[in-house]
Amino acid sequence: MTNKFYGIGVGVGDPEQITIKAVNTLKKLDVVIVPEAKKAEGSTAYEIAKEYLKDDIEIVFMEFPMLKNPLDRVEGRKANTRVVEKLLDEGKNVGFLTIGDTMTYSTYVYLLENMQDRYKSMVETIPGISSFADMSSRFNFPIVMGDESLKIISINDDTDIEKELAGSENIVFMKVMRNFDKLKEALIKTNNMNNIIMVSNSGKDTEKVFYDISNLTKEDIPYFTTMIFKKGGFEEWKKFSL
Amino acid sequence: MTNKFYGIGVGVGDPEQITIKAVNTLKKLDVVIVPEAKKAEGSTAYEIAKEYLKDDIEIVFMEFPMLKNPLDRVEGRKANTRVVEKLLDEGKNVGFLTIGDTMTYSTYVYLLENMQDRYKSMVETIPGISSFADMSSRFNFPIVMGDESLKIISINDDTDIEKELAGSENIVFMKVMRNFDKLKEALIKTNNMNNIIMVSNSGKDTEKVFYDISNLTKEDIPYFTTMIFKKGGFEEWKKFSL
Repeated sequence: MTNKFYGIGVGVGDPEQITIKAVNTLKKLDVVIVPEAKKAEGSTAYEIAKEYLKDDIEIVFMEFPMLKNPLDRVEGRKANTRVVEKLLDEGKNVGFLTIGDTMTYSTYVYLLENMQDRYKSMVETIPGISSFADMSSRFNFPIVMGDESLKIISINDDTDIEKELAGSENIVFMKVMRNFDKLKEALIKTNNMNNIIMVSNSGKDTEKVFYDISNLTKEDIPYFTTMIFKKGGFEEWKKFSL
Repeated sequence: MTNKFYGIGVGVGDPEQITIKAVNTLKKLDVVIVPEAKKAEGSTAYEIAKEYLKDDIEIVFMEFPMLKNPLDRVEGRKANTRVVEKLLDEGKNVGFLTIGDTMTYSTYVYLLENMQDRYKSMVETIPGISSFADMSSRFNFPIVMGDESLKIISINDDTDIEKELAGSENIVFMKVMRNFDKLKEALIKTNNMNNIIMVSNSGKDTEKVFYDISNLTKEDIPYFTTMIFKKGGFEEWKKFSL
């Protein structure tokens, strides 16, 4: 039995939302890596994981700074990957914590991208409950059903929001903060202001839930904010959460 | 503490992939409902759940037949919902098992749709690991990263596959069996035959994994088959699974 590098999804915030597989994997670790791209995220993942970790576990905080220059970003990711590889060379079981699902918009992937081939057979990935699965269950609405489709979008400057709203029955908008005003404008223009739910700081004390965003502007939107659009709206589903 | 109706996602097949929250909920149940829309699916969910259920648990098998006439289908769903409501009237904790995630293409939603308002505050939904999260973790590729988007499509006769392939960096095709020939044709035409992974009977003894579907026809595709398209292809990610 050789040592491994594990990517471990721990869910969104509810400590019970972790899988048994993730728990059993956490127990095996000699080193746990806590990403610090977004300070709050790292510590949430560690808070969930810590009760399962060995008492003498080695903790490595790892930064993934969003540097302006893409080449600098890649250099940072390469340096982080070398840290992982060195720990593997030392024969250690190494785990990387991710909030939500391990393969859905996670910094974990940047380590896999830069890993040298000889380490690749040592990688094992453990999925976690994603933010949008958590949100649809907590508020009791289907994220997608029947013959419908679902689109998951990380909003950027190039996103044609009106086109997206026309093209899917259900849309998860990630990184809402970046282009909130543009998103709101598109919802008004397409007459879809009543067909959304928006949650900020999901599962935390500071959580806020909005079905109506008409009085909000970009300044009101925290970093951890997800919006879900549903063509048929939320009127019927709201009744399950009141 | 009042009794409740729980929708419980148990993951795709690996018994360790269930969440602690799902396990704790299963332990509370007086009645467990096992959907039989697709025989195999129901029994997989029950096999995962049974070790956590009370010894004297009441088991209800529930059919959701895909009847030709949509009105007949709705009548069937209403009758099933009345069964749930009656069990709630009896003061029982009732759980409904779903493979994968509870709010992603699940028959559970048909019960919520037809539930009378006075029962709606008794509903609690527990998410599960979806088939596509499972697949991307097991084969170590990102389902979506950076500024990319992800689309999840249940293929039907109206799906414009070529348009979809042009519109997203990553696509999960569900119900591949229904329109496999059409899907294959679109992949060939758009020069995307090397940019897919297809898994049948994921996690079961009969599991098959394909990166090359050029020799397959509709007759070769089992009911439980999911295909994932990735614009950048899988060459680099394959190295993690070899």
